[in-house]
Amino acid sequence: MTQFFDQLAAVVRAKRSPLVVGLDPRADQLPHAMAPSASTPADTASAYREFCCEVVDATVGCAAAAKPQAAFFEELGPPGVVALVEVIRYCQAKNLLVILDAKRGDIGTTAEAYARGLVGRHSPWGGDALTVNPYLGDDSLAPFVSVAQERGAGLFVLVKTSNPGGKLWQDRPLEAESGVKAPLYRHVGEHVEHLSRNTRGACGYGVVGAVVGATYPQQLAELRAAMPHTWFLIPGFGAQGGSAADTAAGFDPQGLGAVVNSSRGVIFAHKRPEFAGLPWQEAVHRAAEEAAEQLRASTPAGKL
Amino acid sequence: MTQFFDQLAAVVRAKRSPLVVGLDPRADQLPHAMAPSASTPADTASAYREFCCEVVDATVGCAAAAKPQAAFFEELGPPGVVALVEVIRYCQAKNLLVILDAKRGDIGTTAEAYARGLVGRHSPWGGDALTVNPYLGDDSLAPFVSVAQERGAGLFVLVKTSNPGGKLWQDRPLEAESGVKAPLYRHVGEHVEHLSRNTRGACGYGVVGAVVGATYPQQLAELRAAMPHTWFLIPGFGAQGGSAADTAAGFDPQGLGAVVNSSRGVIFAHKRPEFAGLPWQEAVHRAAEEAAEQLRASTPAGKL
Repeated sequence: MTQFFDQLAAVVRAKRSPLVVGLDPRADQLPHAMAPSASTPADTASAYREFCCEVVDATVGCAAAAKPQAAFFEELGPPGVVALVEVIRYCQAKNLLVILDAKRGDIGTTAEAYARGLVGRHSPWGGDALTVNPYLGDDSLAPFVSVAQERGAGLFVLVKTSNPGGKLWQDRPLEAESGVKAPLYRHVGEHVEHLSRNTRGACGYGVVGAVVGATYPQQLAELRAAMPHTWFLIPGFGAQGGSAADTAAGFDPQGLGAVVNSSRGVIFAHKRPEFAGLPWQEAVHRAAEEAAEQLRASTPAGKL
Repeated sequence: MTQFFDQLAAVVRAKRSPLVVGLDPRADQLPHAMAPSASTPADTASAYREFCCEVVDATVGCAAAAKPQAAFFEELGPPGVVALVEVIRYCQAKNLLVILDAKRGDIGTTAEAYARGLVGRHSPWGGDALTVNPYLGDDSLAPFVSVAQERGAGLFVLVKTSNPGGKLWQDRPLEAESGVKAPLYRHVGEHVEHLSRNTRGACGYGVVGAVVGATYPQQLAELRAAMPHTWFLIPGFGAQGGSAADTAAGFDPQGLGAVVNSSRGVIFAHKRPEFAGLPWQEAVHRAAEEAAEQLRASTPAGKL
């Protein structure tokens, strides 16, 4: 069984692109042609499914993975969840890896239930990787790691998030039991690195990745140095304000070790003035190609 | 529109019980008569639905609320999610408040999507309250608070969790921007109290509650004093090792301000030697009555 990060490394190399397309459908932002015919959850869910599948078709050539955001599907109740599963299956039918952005976190058998349900191609959801929240501590991460290892799936633990409020606790100095004082995100990062060092695949990265925002390039560089076996998922590129150059420090010298997410800037490209008048799928396609090209030009991924 | 915590206070008074029954179905723990007929997700989901509804019938007399654990339903994929929605509806048809234990957390419009989807009786899931993870910071909690206020729903933010590993970061001293140094859980608690003080209902408690484990009675007392407008959800009672007396410090002097969850000790009571030979529903009923009675005997809730 090939480990998720080995698969991801192979895809990033093959496509020369670390771009992740964030599938964050919103009823009020969809292109006119994709708007739900009625406002029932079932109609909206059906519109989300069609929209996301067309986004996948338009971006599969230059995207290393898709990252569906569970919240927008869950918001619609059961029909939304069914649509999410269908979108995941569609991505995989197109050989696109799926990072399910659900930010789950719980303890013991409950954490295990999330992991078993959400990741592994034979699980009902079928995500290839999952985002996980570390607030509940080390024993809350352990069951996710066991299940991910067993199934060749990947995890991305929230370490340093891209939102301004993330700093309230993540950036503040915390004194660990060892006496070491460092920002909370750094302690979480060290723990994640410890988990990854012990589960390295052929590509040199372990099963536990980290979410580190593009909006804080200095911390990104610091964490890259401190976490050599941890693959980064970098949100905050594009609409959230981070530039391609801001993500450069997240990569290793070979151009691996990081993927960069763009959601709104790509999937709602029909709203961008420079793409006015194009069919919306073409706008999405060009926005994704442009994002991938920016990442090649400004990061070590260009060397691949 | 009555605020969730005002409703909860009224129910706790009326039933003289702060007991929350945790609906954590597990296929391998169900009573023999409830075991799924096959091992497909749809069969298991159907068994979970029937089992949980019978647990509700057996405990509604002495439970203030039910707390379905989303993970066990999500593990089954879409059929599990449909069963979860049905269980929530069933609770509400029996006038039982529902705390959806999903520990969600995200930023901006994504957080808003979770909140809109999961809480509010007219939302597709229809939870009355939701558990929320604070790692992403203040701007990640704000959208949950707005939606909860708008809908009269409640939140319970993870502050000090009941698992041993929770201490890894939650218990360590963190220096806030103000210069104040305190355990991380205490800072999170202060922020939650700030949110609750500003959203107080008739019962004196605000829309943002806190999860504080029974397994740490000293911190429970400390947080009760520091968070006078924050209702506590106390897990860890029963199977996790906390006694009824351990939860006492979580209540206010009137016997309000806290509810106490028991999951396995109640719902899988058929496995307890003292209930051997009883129909499983009767075992559940007696276990819930016993738990409520222990809470009345050992906490200020007995004065109600």
